[in-house]
Amino acid sequence: MAKVERFSGLLSPVLTPFGEDLSPDVDRLIGHGKWLLERNCNLAPFGTTSEGNSLSVAEKSDILDRLVAAGIPAASMMPGTGTCAIADTAALSAKAAELGCGGVLMLPPFYYKNVGDDGLYAAYDAVIQQVGSAGLKIYLYHIPPMSQTPISLSLIERLLKAYPETVVGIKDSSGEWDNTKAMLDAKFDDFRIFVGSESFLLANMRNGGAGCISATANVNPVAIRELYERWRDDDAEDRQADLDAVRAIFVEYAAIPALKACVAHFAGDPGWALTRPPLMPLDAEKASRTIDALLARGFDMPGLAGAKAAAE
Amino acid sequence: MAKVERFSGLLSPVLTPFGEDLSPDVDRLIGHGKWLLERNCNLAPFGTTSEGNSLSVAEKSDILDRLVAAGIPAASMMPGTGTCAIADTAALSAKAAELGCGGVLMLPPFYYKNVGDDGLYAAYDAVIQQVGSAGLKIYLYHIPPMSQTPISLSLIERLLKAYPETVVGIKDSSGEWDNTKAMLDAKFDDFRIFVGSESFLLANMRNGGAGCISATANVNPVAIRELYERWRDDDAEDRQADLDAVRAIFVEYAAIPALKACVAHFAGDPGWALTRPPLMPLDAEKASRTIDALLARGFDMPGLAGAKAAAE
Repeated sequence: MAKVERFSGLLSPVLTPFGEDLSPDVDRLIGHGKWLLERNCNLAPFGTTSEGNSLSVAEKSDILDRLVAAGIPAASMMPGTGTCAIADTAALSAKAAELGCGGVLMLPPFYYKNVGDDGLYAAYDAVIQQVGSAGLKIYLYHIPPMSQTPISLSLIERLLKAYPETVVGIKDSSGEWDNTKAMLDAKFDDFRIFVGSESFLLANMRNGGAGCISATANVNPVAIRELYERWRDDDAEDRQADLDAVRAIFVEYAAIPALKACVAHFAGDPGWALTRPPLMPLDAEKASRTIDALLARGFDMPGLAGAKAAAE
Repeated sequence: MAKVERFSGLLSPVLTPFGEDLSPDVDRLIGHGKWLLERNCNLAPFGTTSEGNSLSVAEKSDILDRLVAAGIPAASMMPGTGTCAIADTAALSAKAAELGCGGVLMLPPFYYKNVGDDGLYAAYDAVIQQVGSAGLKIYLYHIPPMSQTPISLSLIERLLKAYPETVVGIKDSSGEWDNTKAMLDAKFDDFRIFVGSESFLLANMRNGGAGCISATANVNPVAIRELYERWRDDDAEDRQADLDAVRAIFVEYAAIPALKACVAHFAGDPGWALTRPPLMPLDAEKASRTIDALLARGFDMPGLAGAKAAAE
């Protein structure tokens, strides 16, 4: 088996488009994925922003197959595979490893609360043992606002000691820079630390981080990638401020529906705005305010409408 | 299709035993299920106490088949079928309805937080439409400490208006009597309200409730059932106090591992104490203290060791 390169740079938790019947619209997804890849943005399907936890195990497995069949390189993908149940997580992770995915983004089991590090270690350990593949590369997913199940520094240390070639990074979506900084300061060997928001991208790069995996990368990949590449430049603070201003527009209401409304607008494809319950699309007024705020900044997503046409 | 009777009385979220390899031990589960049924306690497999959310979709489907094949009446079961994803929830619920289960206990999708009633209504609506069976009887599952996704009174009203023959009850595991009382006071037509702890059983019965679905029913079904049957008797308060004293022993540490330690002890079957990660068994000292406290009260689980022998 070829050595799997560790990720760095920018990844997008790819938005999942749905049809009127709420089934995943994989053609639209492929078009969007290719649009992102052409902009040097790798793909993290089935993340929080992807409504990944609203997709069934069977749907995720099927979508992965279809993405690869459509010519999206498996090595460019870090699918979310963490569920509440070890067997589901192991099955999805094994599938990703078999396809040659560059890694998986793995939530801890998140139904039971306050379970402690011993329980979380045992859960990750069981998944790794059940997958049993050297091709499995795990990026831990720390997102307490959703999972309510934090991944502590001591849990990371323990996993790295047992599985230094399998546990290779983390996405920190805590929104707490002190937490990211503590992980960076630990200087784990070649451990890839991604921030979950581009608002922390400059700080992350200045402290030895690997990049970011951000919801907003779905719509603003070029500018985010530029800061990643030019973080040592004199204008880095200005670039960071620009990214923050765009991001603020999306988090004003609810980020996932706002991002979908944005893609719908710039792709000229209203169906893109649909979400799967329990998430709901923005109402017309909020969607309109979001688009107006973006247009007022001169924001655009060039090539997106073309991507849609090419997929058809 | 024969009319499906609505549940009342006592149900146990059946503990799920696991083997050393962490796979569900269905033979032990069948033995325990029969022991409960013989004590007039119906079965709610795959509840929170069952570590139901640590079981994969495929495991739950397989276990249901095996329980029915072992002679456990489907009508006596209210399996937990709610997951984060509509398609998984619909598949498990359809399976339960096909087998003739008396109902299903359905969590709302619980990964995304603060989603609002519109989103939760849309999720339940989509599941009901996808199952499309008159045999589907849903008991809503309100358990904010775990799901972080409450089911409001107005959501219940809306679901009852749309699906009066499908949405037939609720389990309230909020631990907040005021919440249960508000639902009881609404006097929904033949809507079965179960408290999630026997600590509220007497209050629930006095206010028109249907019974309880309690973790502790796994070990103390006879005494809980007696209060259900005799709640109008003069000694009801004393019975309630006795139930509360036993319950207190289990919630002292962590209830699920403590209940498993109890079954392991009284069944003479140490393997029963195993949990699936992220839950961990009680350490020896806590398990020993739990058993000692039970023995000091003269607590017993008669017939349990026999149930194990019969299953072998």
